[in-house]
Amino acid sequence: MIDIQSGEAKTPFAIESVGILNLVYPIVIKDRVSGEVQSTSATWRMGVALPAERRGTHMSRFIAELEAAHTRPFDLDEHFRFALHVAARLDAAPLHSCDISAKFAWFRTVKAPVSGLASHLVSELELKSKTGDHAEKAMRVTVSAKSLCPCSKAISDRGAHNQRSDITVELAFAPDAVSMSPNRVLELIEQCASSPVYPLLKREDEKHVTEHAYDHPVFVEDLVRNIASRLHDLPDITRFEVEAINRESIHAHDAYARIRFTR
Amino acid sequence: MIDIQSGEAKTPFAIESVGILNLVYPIVIKDRVSGEVQSTSATWRMGVALPAERRGTHMSRFIAELEAAHTRPFDLDEHFRFALHVAARLDAAPLHSCDISAKFAWFRTVKAPVSGLASHLVSELELKSKTGDHAEKAMRVTVSAKSLCPCSKAISDRGAHNQRSDITVELAFAPDAVSMSPNRVLELIEQCASSPVYPLLKREDEKHVTEHAYDHPVFVEDLVRNIASRLHDLPDITRFEVEAINRESIHAHDAYARIRFTR
Amino acid sequence: MIDIQSGEAKTPFAIESVGILNLVYPIVIKDRVSGEVQSTSATWRMGVALPAERRGTHMSRFIAELEAAHTRPFDLDEHFRFALHVAARLDAAPLHSCDISAKFAWFRTVKAPVSGLASHLVSELELKSKTGDHAEKAMRVTVSAKSLCPCSKAISDRGAHNQRSDITVELAFAPDAVSMSPNRVLELIEQCASSPVYPLLKREDEKHVTEHAYDHPVFVEDLVRNIASRLHDLPDITRFEVEAINRESIHAHDAYARIRFTR
Amino acid sequence: MIDIQSGEAKTPFAIESVGILNLVYPIVIKDRVSGEVQSTSATWRMGVALPAERRGTHMSRFIAELEAAHTRPFDLDEHFRFALHVAARLDAAPLHSCDISAKFAWFRTVKAPVSGLASHLVSELELKSKTGDHAEKAMRVTVSAKSLCPCSKAISDRGAHNQRSDITVELAFAPDAVSMSPNRVLELIEQCASSPVYPLLKREDEKHVTEHAYDHPVFVEDLVRNIASRLHDLPDITRFEVEAINRESIHAHDAYARIRFTR
Repeated sequence: MIDIQSGEAKTPFAIESVGILNLVYPIVIKDRVSGEVQSTSATWRMGVALPAERRGTHMSRFIAELEAAHTRPFDLDEHFRFALHVAARLDAAPLHSCDISAKFAWFRTVKAPVSGLASHLVSELELKSKTGDHAEKAMRVTVSAKSLCPCSKAISDRGAHNQRSDITVELAFAPDAVSMSPNRVLELIEQCASSPVYPLLKREDEKHVTEHAYDHPVFVEDLVRNIASRLHDLPDITRFEVEAINRESIHAHDAYARIRFTR
Repeated sequence: MIDIQSGEAKTPFAIESVGILNLVYPIVIKDRVSGEVQSTSATWRMGVALPAERRGTHMSRFIAELEAAHTRPFDLDEHFRFALHVAARLDAAPLHSCDISAKFAWFRTVKAPVSGLASHLVSELELKSKTGDHAEKAMRVTVSAKSLCPCSKAISDRGAHNQRSDITVELAFAPDAVSMSPNRVLELIEQCASSPVYPLLKREDEKHVTEHAYDHPVFVEDLVRNIASRLHDLPDITRFEVEAINRESIHAHDAYARIRFTR
Repeated sequence: MIDIQSGEAKTPFAIESVGILNLVYPIVIKDRVSGEVQSTSATWRMGVALPAERRGTHMSRFIAELEAAHTRPFDLDEHFRFALHVAARLDAAPLHSCDISAKFAWFRTVKAPVSGLASHLVSELELKSKTGDHAEKAMRVTVSAKSLCPCSKAISDRGAHNQRSDITVELAFAPDAVSMSPNRVLELIEQCASSPVYPLLKREDEKHVTEHAYDHPVFVEDLVRNIASRLHDLPDITRFEVEAINRESIHAHDAYARIRFTR
Repeated sequence: MIDIQSGEAKTPFAIESVGILNLVYPIVIKDRVSGEVQSTSATWRMGVALPAERRGTHMSRFIAELEAAHTRPFDLDEHFRFALHVAARLDAAPLHSCDISAKFAWFRTVKAPVSGLASHLVSELELKSKTGDHAEKAMRVTVSAKSLCPCSKAISDRGAHNQRSDITVELAFAPDAVSMSPNRVLELIEQCASSPVYPLLKREDEKHVTEHAYDHPVFVEDLVRNIASRLHDLPDITRFEVEAINRESIHAHDAYARIRFTR
């Protein structure tokens, strides 16, 4: 059966990345620090660079490799090794440039601040690996927290507007570095907001969260600066990006702030 | 050229609705009360009932009718007349059953409560018409507002958690009734929340909104009951549905309440 | 600490459903037929009916019950039992009316039609239980398949347009009936399309899928009728709903057809 | 009334961009070439760079400027001038760095290939302007087209799988260059696919589109290369990005390819 993809491109132009996306597949995640393992489903993007003269990649190999690996416990370091393997299998160019991402729901057990009741708080976790000349492995987390407006508190005789904030942090590591536990990043983020959010709060917890947020007001600018400043002190991080989006309770639109830093 | 759709169905089963969806098309909207006209783009769903024995509908006629009507100023009453016309053109069964929906962004000029500065506040407006045995015309609006938690206010020594709420109201009218202006419904909704939201607020306005919300706390249950109670008093409405979704600022999940009422 | 929610409503109006939504939580799913168990994350909606005179529900109890149940293997029958338990815990009115839904990615191992290579195909599965006067348990599945247009095939000298179709089936069972395996429903749906889709296809498989689809053309109307006709023959189903959405490859909009049936 | 935002940052860290997003506002668009004007609603993002020592930006000024400009006919050149104005009003740093984006539905009248019947085809158009050190103005368009697989056609005895493709092109121009008409870019993209898509097709048109696509098969790699090669020949473009996403009709996942080029 003829193999058109392996033929020559009619219009030679190097392709930065070609592959598949929106592929939902079972995944097993391990947390290197706690040893905890979570089984869930991930949305994958898998691509390789293609030299100007080669017509097509072999799309089915991405799936074959993923099927072979889908019971393997992944953390970011294992994810990067998987990308190296896929790059070799796909003959990625130049010099095995392959970029792979897996995004999924990650859970932490959190305890309500007064009652101590436990529940599972979701965050979004994405593992991103790139091989080749600009190789790196990166972790991207998105978590919700509470922000209370310092201006509203300062100018109002009573109350202060507050809202849910969705905060995203991306951290990149050198290929041979040992990556961080996502939970450490998530806790760092929450400490910079007016308050963490919790799935399960009894009345005494709700009182605590309300008052704690009122005592720790932050602008969206403060939020990203506080996080950036703490990430800046961490070793092994080659670059980071912080974005906070406040779902403003006094507007129908959102406020955002973003910091990007490369060491 | 053969016309397979007009042939007989191999598996006879009456189809409740067949047609097109996710069609984005230019639309002109008029407000019968203010006389205001807005040009924008709408997402359309257009379908007809199909008798058990007929194999297919003629999809292209939906588009042809829409193209012919796309500069006509629509309000809900005109939208219903359009549905009657489409039903006739499509030979809809039984007895011309056709259901059509157009969803789009609708703007009101709102004034900040203290500075009086004007800006445009968006809401989502959907016109829904159904012909045939169960004919009705319905308006569905979604607008954001601010809700402040009465429990949090009552139990906390300072502050109270509050958040953006997205509130949806659907109102149905008899085919021959004169429908309401969407702006009247939107203002009714906002009056039942802790505060409206505004695109443009100066500091003096933000102080006012913060304090006003603190003085008018509502649970998500209060919110839908207040709205339902006011809709209940309006004549000409044959049924209504109210749903509020609070984007809780102390949780990563939402709270909701829903009331449905048929006269 | 005062308990405002337990007080009296200022505006008495019965609330059809009040509770939480967009809550993402770990879940364990079992397939009663195969015995297979899958761990993943689900998006939950949990609500109860509230009588006119009671001001509020106790939102935190939903989470507490879910936390207590999150390692329990769910199928639809177990999901309904969970709803009965939540209804009792929340004092739901009238007569324990509680409605709960959990939506998640469900995987089947499928084999490519010629090479026989295995991979994991996702579908969306939602378990929906309602207690009280109109008690039922329902399963809602959405799966992609391939549809090829009979009209395009009949009128064209070569080729035929085809596309991905997203097909949703909801099946309701009486509370005391034994529910079906989701895999049986998914296979039934795929047999009514021009071809199933597969994550992993080698060239010989792609040839087979292409030709098989060309030999089994279906309109969106045929698709829902074929499925409805087969569901109609199944015992124990009290009502069903079938909707197919064709992501038309000759249009930027979609075509759909829907059948609803109550026994 | 105190002005906290104008105070000093507690944690000095330069903010790349701070502002608002998901703001839906009325917009008027003009096409410089055809002179055509379209009124619709746009989703805006507006941000400025903030120096390390300044605590906050003045969010309300974004809205005030937009309100003042919302009836002005925008094309990309006018959009860039608006960004320069906003940068000055917001005292953006460094040296007036402001980034603004407006995304909206843009319509072209297209004619069915045989019947010649006219209808309105939507595409997504985004205007993106950046002032300051790395000033540029960019146009980002997303349009659907049809792609038919050369491999499937070559290996199959009959038919070939095909699907809807969503193609995005971003073109950047120097601040003082005259930008292109979006319609010219959209037509260029469609000419590189297996066929354009159309809202309105009669049977004779459907036959033509089916056969034309069968005669012009393209891989997702071919598609982006064909587009890139034609964009490469255009003067005044300082960089471009092309991404095609095929909604594969034989898979539940998508295939993509991406080329980025900077002159």
